Amino acid sequence: MSSKRQNLYPLFLTIFLLLVLGSFASPRKSIRSRRPCKELVFYFHDIIYNGKNFKNATAAIVGAPAWGNHTILANNNHFGNIVVFDDPITLDNNLHSPPVGRAQGFYIYDKKEIFTAWLGFSFVFNSTAHKGSINFAGADPLMNKTRDISVIGGTGDFFMTRGVATIMTDSFEGEVYFRLRVDIKFYECW
Amino acid sequence: MSSKRQNLYPLFLTIFLLLVLGSFASPRKSIRSRRPCKELVFYFHDIIYNGKNFKNATAAIVGAPAWGNHTILANNNHFGNIVVFDDPITLDNNLHSPPVGRAQGFYIYDKKEIFTAWLGFSFVFNSTAHKGSINFAGADPLMNKTRDISVIGGTGDFFMTRGVATIMTDSFEGEVYFRLRVDIKFYECW
Amino acid sequence: MSSKRQNLYPLFLTIFLLLVLGSFASPRKSIRSRRPCKELVFYFHDIIYNGKNFKNATAAIVGAPAWGNHTILANNNHFGNIVVFDDPITLDNNLHSPPVGRAQGFYIYDKKEIFTAWLGFSFVFNSTAHKGSINFAGADPLMNKTRDISVIGGTGDFFMTRGVATIMTDSFEGEVYFRLRVDIKFYECW
Repeated sequence: MSSKRQNLYPLFLTIFLLLVLGSFASPRKSIRSRRPCKELVFYFHDIIYNGKNFKNATAAIVGAPAWGNHTILANNNHFGNIVVFDDPITLDNNLHSPPVGRAQGFYIYDKKEIFTAWLGFSFVFNSTAHKGSINFAGADPLMNKTRDISVIGGTGDFFMTRGVATIMTDSFEGEVYFRLRVDIKFYECW
Repeated sequence: MSSKRQNLYPLFLTIFLLLVLGSFASPRKSIRSRRPCKELVFYFHDIIYNGKNFKNATAAIVGAPAWGNHTILANNNHFGNIVVFDDPITLDNNLHSPPVGRAQGFYIYDKKEIFTAWLGFSFVFNSTAHKGSINFAGADPLMNKTRDISVIGGTGDFFMTRGVATIMTDSFEGEVYFRLRVDIKFYECW
Repeated sequence: MSSKRQNLYPLFLTIFLLLVLGSFASPRKSIRSRRPCKELVFYFHDIIYNGKNFKNATAAIVGAPAWGNHTILANNNHFGNIVVFDDPITLDNNLHSPPVGRAQGFYIYDKKEIFTAWLGFSFVFNSTAHKGSINFAGADPLMNKTRDISVIGGTGDFFMTRGVATIMTDSFEGEVYFRLRVDIKFYECW
């Protein structure tokens, strides 16, 4: 009988320690892992104001180098142009699909020799599917097929998220319209 | 006697394993939780240069769309205006209270149809109460009563922090002065 | 015999629990600690376009206050000037050393009374030593000997990193050339 009781010790101990382990694990409600905890794909559509398309334009040149102006993108690979945008976000690659949110922020062309830019912007959602914002920053060497930028934070449904967004130029027409595909991989979810 | 010694095994084991658990837990000195680990409320005060108020101005228009200039905020909801600021931070809503730091950075009006902006700025402190900086980025749909942006990092007393800041327009006078209330909730503290 | 088997229980239990512990610890491959998990030191070199040095220039004024222009940095401590840059990164303080990457982004002078700026930029690497990007944001009170800004994210070799970068003005010549030393300390590595 006494021997039988002793046999149960390891079992009780195991249960106790698993409970302890559980309590250590539980305050960390957020997830951090190398496998994305969430993934989203969107398209957004940029129509740059060129002096003639005010009604349709979603973006405008607001900074330029000494050799540029605010109506036409500057020579030397647009080096020095700052563009502000408020672009519709869609779920597919059709400009005329119902927008699910807005991509708002700016890019700066930052190199004389080739096209490359720096991006600071947010995805802003206010629908039944998504409420809140995702904030992005990073270099966009836009001649590369894919470019990675950082998801630096989020609010609402995207509270405190971090991750990496892969951008692809899906299509463009001259220097007025271009469409970007963004594959957002979150590695920190809350 | 031998049976008595056996009884102590589970106890030793428990102590040993708790030590192991402790060593796993201790390298993680930082806190991550859904309840704020720190909360701060500040006000800051923006006085935009309008051609006549250089001495008092804390902000200036430095980018504009083709239809704008650098002295008056542009038509179409200021779409395209970039404003740089160095605003006093106060603990209450009085512009003339002793500043406890400076809010420094920029905002860009980024939509034709309504007032909305994108913010990139820092709170810079150098007093006995706070030393260091808090860095912010995010969309500011400024017609909404409250807007959430991201705390993307910090230095000094705010080393490596992350969080969410809720912004409210506390007051404004015409298009020259406005005062923002910022409720900063940190969810990652170190 | 029965007594001998019982003696092994604690051992099995220990092994089992260490395995459990291991499985709890392993999904968290990322490191977070107060001691840097990685440290890197670089220099970068900024040559501002002044109307005469187009070939060598790596930066250009692209925003200015009402009292400024895009060729000469403005009065009042350059308050309101936005400068876009694509600067070579080197391992030592020699402008002519082979660049190991590019520092790309912008700074904005943001105070009337003294020199101070706000920075948003990336280090972009594409060599055998480093591939990927590091994204930075923060206030740069450039009259201070050292200034701390935030590492807000990274991609490639710097996937999901966070940290603090300490900037020092290593040298400058008039208002055209300056060289910064950046000591990057990562506190979150993946």
